[in-house]
Amino acid sequence: MKINMAHGSGGNATRELIRDLFQKYLTNEYLEKMEDAASLPGSKYPLALTTDSFVITPLEFPGGDIGKLAVCGTVNDLWMSGAEPEYLTAGFILEEGLDFSLLEKVIASLSKAAKEAGVKIVAGDTKVVQGNGGLYINTAGLGFQKYNQSMVSGTVLPGDAIIVNGDLGNHHACIMSQRMEIINNIQSDCANLGPAVKEILQSGAEVRLMRDITRGGLGTILNEIAESKNALIEVEETKIPVDPEVQSFCEILGLDPLYMANEGKFLCITSQKDEEKVLEILQNHPLGKRARCIGHILNTDKFQVTVKTRLGGRRIVDILYGEGLPRIC
Amino acid sequence: MKINMAHGSGGNATRELIRDLFQKYLTNEYLEKMEDAASLPGSKYPLALTTDSFVITPLEFPGGDIGKLAVCGTVNDLWMSGAEPEYLTAGFILEEGLDFSLLEKVIASLSKAAKEAGVKIVAGDTKVVQGNGGLYINTAGLGFQKYNQSMVSGTVLPGDAIIVNGDLGNHHACIMSQRMEIINNIQSDCANLGPAVKEILQSGAEVRLMRDITRGGLGTILNEIAESKNALIEVEETKIPVDPEVQSFCEILGLDPLYMANEGKFLCITSQKDEEKVLEILQNHPLGKRARCIGHILNTDKFQVTVKTRLGGRRIVDILYGEGLPRIC
Repeated sequence: MKINMAHGSGGNATRELIRDLFQKYLTNEYLEKMEDAASLPGSKYPLALTTDSFVITPLEFPGGDIGKLAVCGTVNDLWMSGAEPEYLTAGFILEEGLDFSLLEKVIASLSKAAKEAGVKIVAGDTKVVQGNGGLYINTAGLGFQKYNQSMVSGTVLPGDAIIVNGDLGNHHACIMSQRMEIINNIQSDCANLGPAVKEILQSGAEVRLMRDITRGGLGTILNEIAESKNALIEVEETKIPVDPEVQSFCEILGLDPLYMANEGKFLCITSQKDEEKVLEILQNHPLGKRARCIGHILNTDKFQVTVKTRLGGRRIVDILYGEGLPRIC
Repeated sequence: MKINMAHGSGGNATRELIRDLFQKYLTNEYLEKMEDAASLPGSKYPLALTTDSFVITPLEFPGGDIGKLAVCGTVNDLWMSGAEPEYLTAGFILEEGLDFSLLEKVIASLSKAAKEAGVKIVAGDTKVVQGNGGLYINTAGLGFQKYNQSMVSGTVLPGDAIIVNGDLGNHHACIMSQRMEIINNIQSDCANLGPAVKEILQSGAEVRLMRDITRGGLGTILNEIAESKNALIEVEETKIPVDPEVQSFCEILGLDPLYMANEGKFLCITSQKDEEKVLEILQNHPLGKRARCIGHILNTDKFQVTVKTRLGGRRIVDILYGEGLPRIC
């Protein structure tokens, strides 16, 4: 069975699709009321709200699919702000011709990821557009900021450590391999970062800020941080963790892991004194076995990102220019 | 200038697009922090959360555009649950080839609608996909349920009045006219229902429930209510308000206003004793000048929707079957 325009009419076909698919996999006490808006308990904690649209192709890839990604991406954004994710909304834009069984697999995967992340899908929407069997998913996430105490100042200090939780570039290399039909073992790192982040936040370590290293890659994100904090950041090329297979892939294709997208990696800036503490927490966690301190904040009087190269030189790291890889997330 | 794939890369082109367009029109104290999630104050009130994706074509139409629609649609969903809208997220999926000046008009319109509705866009996301210059917008809305006291029981009673705030079918007839290049004066009714709904909720009238009459039309929505409340609903054909020009349009094309989409219409079920009170509030408000009581809840022992026809007969009103009008919202 294929999705057709009638599934977006708001009438009978839409209702059947919602009943046979969305309600089957996603139901909970909020969603089953089928009201215009979900009614949720209030919160004494500050709220965190975020949104992300997912347009990745292919819809399924080694290590995940668009459904898992749509949960992990938004849940991770909430964790980065020190918030425990509670509720998601999900908006589906289906292209005509989308295979019903593929959609079902994606929804099942989204449901599983939501359960694992401890979030409920409380509101949804489905539209159908002309096209070639594609699928876009938007998720918005609402969380409660229970843990952001040390991040509220928004400042970084000279000496602060920049820690990443593991190998960079896997998601990017995986999607690119799929598109180019290159056979290898590279899997996307698509993951809910919550369990590792929660341990760090609960440890009382002085966390200045966290950012997930998605579109644009580490280089772009370090530049955004440098700019917003007026900070001089230096990282060491030899300390940036990259999986050997991804490294070979990059060398063959002339890619730089600094600009490659990830879906299960984040950077955490901590005070110098808590560098070891955070590293230890991460290295003892499945999501951070290959965590490293890759550099430090050198100064906060001008903004720039530099990298100390393998050969001991120093070069400026700019933001990503040009196209990057389209539809990577 | 046209949108191209580089605008979705997460690198330089994305940053320029965000700076020159989204920040220019949408900035506020939350959005300007450019963090992964917006940090918002907590709430002693219950929260209301909703989402809607907008895929309408054409992007501009008499009475509105996709930007205005993306705010009004989501804000209205929050009001329907008795919540005052506070924050929106906005996810933009741009098709390659989209005209920058058209996108700018849409964003300016979205910004204006948000200001008028008293909501702030606190988180956003932009993606670019291959295509033909189209645009999809997802908005999620967060509100505080300050006014839903009388709606919490979730029940309706025999004798309850069903009130609509005005003429049905305008949005549907407007979009159809645009697509068929029929020249007439029909405008979309696209509007933020907040000011009228707030007056009703603040009046203390016993409101059982409210629903906006969008995709699927009044017939479908009455059926959804009848089913969820196990209610027998009867409406009178002669009391359903329809603009004369829309009525002629429907007669020529064989359309039934019962199944036509609206973007500024809602139905309000009130206790019998407050029927007049709610009608008076609406009829004295610009958003409800042509408000009518169109029928009543007859019983709550089986679910069905019937209409008393012009000729005095009675027929069953079913939900919308088939395609409806694609991409109406």
